[in-house]
Amino acid sequence: MKAQGSSADESMDNLITSTDPEHPANHICTLCRNFYALGWVTGTGGGVSIRDGPHIFIAPSGVQKELMQPANMFVMDYATRAYLRKPPILKPSACTPLFLAAFDRGAGSCIHTHSQWAVLVTLLVEKDAVSQGREVSDACFEIEQIEQIKGIPKGRGKDGMLGFFDRLTVPIIENTAHEEDLTQSLEAAMERYPETYAVLVRRHGLYVWGANVQKAKTQAESLDYIFRLAVEMRRLDLPWIQ
Amino acid sequence: MKAQGSSADESMDNLITSTDPEHPANHICTLCRNFYALGWVTGTGGGVSIRDGPHIFIAPSGVQKELMQPANMFVMDYATRAYLRKPPILKPSACTPLFLAAFDRGAGSCIHTHSQWAVLVTLLVEKDAVSQGREVSDACFEIEQIEQIKGIPKGRGKDGMLGFFDRLTVPIIENTAHEEDLTQSLEAAMERYPETYAVLVRRHGLYVWGANVQKAKTQAESLDYIFRLAVEMRRLDLPWIQ
Amino acid sequence: MKAQGSSADESMDNLITSTDPEHPANHICTLCRNFYALGWVTGTGGGVSIRDGPHIFIAPSGVQKELMQPANMFVMDYATRAYLRKPPILKPSACTPLFLAAFDRGAGSCIHTHSQWAVLVTLLVEKDAVSQGREVSDACFEIEQIEQIKGIPKGRGKDGMLGFFDRLTVPIIENTAHEEDLTQSLEAAMERYPETYAVLVRRHGLYVWGANVQKAKTQAESLDYIFRLAVEMRRLDLPWIQ
Amino acid sequence: MKAQGSSADESMDNLITSTDPEHPANHICTLCRNFYALGWVTGTGGGVSIRDGPHIFIAPSGVQKELMQPANMFVMDYATRAYLRKPPILKPSACTPLFLAAFDRGAGSCIHTHSQWAVLVTLLVEKDAVSQGREVSDACFEIEQIEQIKGIPKGRGKDGMLGFFDRLTVPIIENTAHEEDLTQSLEAAMERYPETYAVLVRRHGLYVWGANVQKAKTQAESLDYIFRLAVEMRRLDLPWIQ
Repeated sequence: MKAQGSSADESMDNLITSTDPEHPANHICTLCRNFYALGWVTGTGGGVSIRDGPHIFIAPSGVQKELMQPANMFVMDYATRAYLRKPPILKPSACTPLFLAAFDRGAGSCIHTHSQWAVLVTLLVEKDAVSQGREVSDACFEIEQIEQIKGIPKGRGKDGMLGFFDRLTVPIIENTAHEEDLTQSLEAAMERYPETYAVLVRRHGLYVWGANVQKAKTQAESLDYIFRLAVEMRRLDLPWIQ
Repeated sequence: MKAQGSSADESMDNLITSTDPEHPANHICTLCRNFYALGWVTGTGGGVSIRDGPHIFIAPSGVQKELMQPANMFVMDYATRAYLRKPPILKPSACTPLFLAAFDRGAGSCIHTHSQWAVLVTLLVEKDAVSQGREVSDACFEIEQIEQIKGIPKGRGKDGMLGFFDRLTVPIIENTAHEEDLTQSLEAAMERYPETYAVLVRRHGLYVWGANVQKAKTQAESLDYIFRLAVEMRRLDLPWIQ
Repeated sequence: MKAQGSSADESMDNLITSTDPEHPANHICTLCRNFYALGWVTGTGGGVSIRDGPHIFIAPSGVQKELMQPANMFVMDYATRAYLRKPPILKPSACTPLFLAAFDRGAGSCIHTHSQWAVLVTLLVEKDAVSQGREVSDACFEIEQIEQIKGIPKGRGKDGMLGFFDRLTVPIIENTAHEEDLTQSLEAAMERYPETYAVLVRRHGLYVWGANVQKAKTQAESLDYIFRLAVEMRRLDLPWIQ
Repeated sequence: MKAQGSSADESMDNLITSTDPEHPANHICTLCRNFYALGWVTGTGGGVSIRDGPHIFIAPSGVQKELMQPANMFVMDYATRAYLRKPPILKPSACTPLFLAAFDRGAGSCIHTHSQWAVLVTLLVEKDAVSQGREVSDACFEIEQIEQIKGIPKGRGKDGMLGFFDRLTVPIIENTAHEEDLTQSLEAAMERYPETYAVLVRRHGLYVWGANVQKAKTQAESLDYIFRLAVEMRRLDLPWIQ
């Protein structure tokens, strides 16, 4: 890996410069703008990452998502985990080790949202477990027989999407003081629930990944739709499981 | 019908190429973008179709609706049901046979949404029927005395729109594992309720059609407004029928 | 008044042609687009009118509000109530006599919305009156001590806006089968409540007017904010009046 | 300070003229448009101010926020509190003394919103205090263990942001008939709660400030997210404090 000098920084800008809207540096900005409008990345929360062959592109910490620019991107060499490009001043996303956990399991893109619907379902699942005397750490978000479930794939190594009569299960891990400290429990949840493409974080939000960025994004949408629907169903006393 | 060869594909692009925003290939894209913003076609769900004389234009399966392009369109010869144009790679919409059921009954356009308000009213109607000991399969969504009802036409063969003192009735069919398998029950509902311009699908969404695309679209809007209002009324314990 | 001939139609287009965005023909289109995004004019419902000296500009019936164009406008001579310009094909707004009732009382602009929040508050007021044994026809929407009330003026002949400690009172009339038939009860409400700038229509929506279009529009916004807040307060068991 | 003459007015326009989108006169307009879309500044309510060295830029009273232009800005000399530039016709923001209270405590920007979520939490806190026999004037909005809390800084003189296990406390003051009359109680709350970056006003909205405009804006977002989440949690009977 080249030394990080000023000429290296300038030559590394070629990593994030492209007229192709689907180039990860541009695509992350588009997604950040969209996610901001959806209320998923409010107040600089949340994050987006895309793998492009040997490179991982990650939006930085602390930048207003709706104002994200290609020049803000961190670019990491996936094999060595070393940064090939760091934007001036900005700090790397605290989600980085969690994104890497997803890439290590074959993901092409990983998204982190602070969706309020995600936060609410983690609280409802916890409340249900406590009131029913079940172990909170074993309690996942589960729902069946909602068409939108078909927007989620069956699981790694399986072909196709979940069916209408399948059960959607999303594991939940407890939040920690620091985002990086979630890595161990996120990886444990990925191992315990190998078919999942998402993990909810109590009182925090959602990590969701996919084989590529289109899948990660559409899966994020379908899950958020389902979380919001679940909250509306709860308000109307409609059960998630028959 | 011409053989589907490479020269045929190129010549078939004239079917979807136009500068007129109301050309079906363009109009479907506009509607898809709008419906995406409304939350009706999240995570590639839902669908849109328009009949233009002998041709049916249908948005494909699996494409993000807000990114739909004219080049993505399937074009079908209505008389023979054969595809005149298939976009490369993409799959036809699973809604296609259901759209055709609407066209067979005189529709000029048929829209399929995954609106959460539609899903919720199907669940509330089911819950009401069960708690009142009524047959669920006979239970329609019904509401009266809401001005927006006047956005829905009276029914095939009748002139004009529903009146404020009329009752809006939208039949509900049960969802199936595969979208195409809904066709039989959708057609049965269209026969049983010949005045309807829409059928709700439990836990799934809405099929709505109209004599032309403007009517299908405005009717879809009025229905979704009414479904959302119905959910808000239920939360406030306000009855749909006096 | 000139005869309505083809040359008259062409010369009448000068009534709706301007590069000034605040020209009523352009301004109505802008407002219609905004109101569509707010959910006030769904499925071609609702309406907008602006008085400009001797002329009244009114958006037509049955046009999708987000697609409104200056060429769609009706222009009426206020003194004679005769149309100076009628767009081809389109029908005049059914709100026209109600708009005129507002103009007759000094308004510069009148807006009609189908806001669901307006509909819901009319139902809650009715429900309260019935449960408290009060006369429904005397029951207005009333709320106090919400800052946004200061967005509503004190009343005709009075100077300034309502104060935080004032009570906002909006009368409610019953809906009729036909929009034009509301005129009598709207005028009666305007007479009975001479300080009001708005009248709610049960299960239908809101008529709101102002001395000019900016006031009508900002008053419409403040009222809708208050109606939505009132519904949210009711859900949380927070009283509108102490 | 120069006399306010016509040549002074023209030369003062250089204070608000810039092609830099981050120039306060431009930035305030951008923020006003965004805040309008968020429902924070409906019906000309709310306000935005930015300090730029010796100058304070403040949006005027009574202008529709989504239509704000640089030419609408008031520019004040912070040291003398005298206006260097007044737009023709328009009145200064009634929030001005409250904004100055924030600038006097080191803020770089102060934002005032009429967010309905802010209004609702002030009512819920009051209701809780009354039902629990606590002094309403001592009752703050408090919440813990929501990740978004980390979007709020720890407090003046302290480094960094609140932690997940910290408690977010936002004081609440009672509304008054006139905005300027809030100044005394706002300053008292800032003194009583020196770590706060925001003060809620009962039945009115929120004042929030930050070291610079980016911080004020992102803090406003995080707070509004938290207020909305708090209302949704209350509806689902989920406690704000364990």
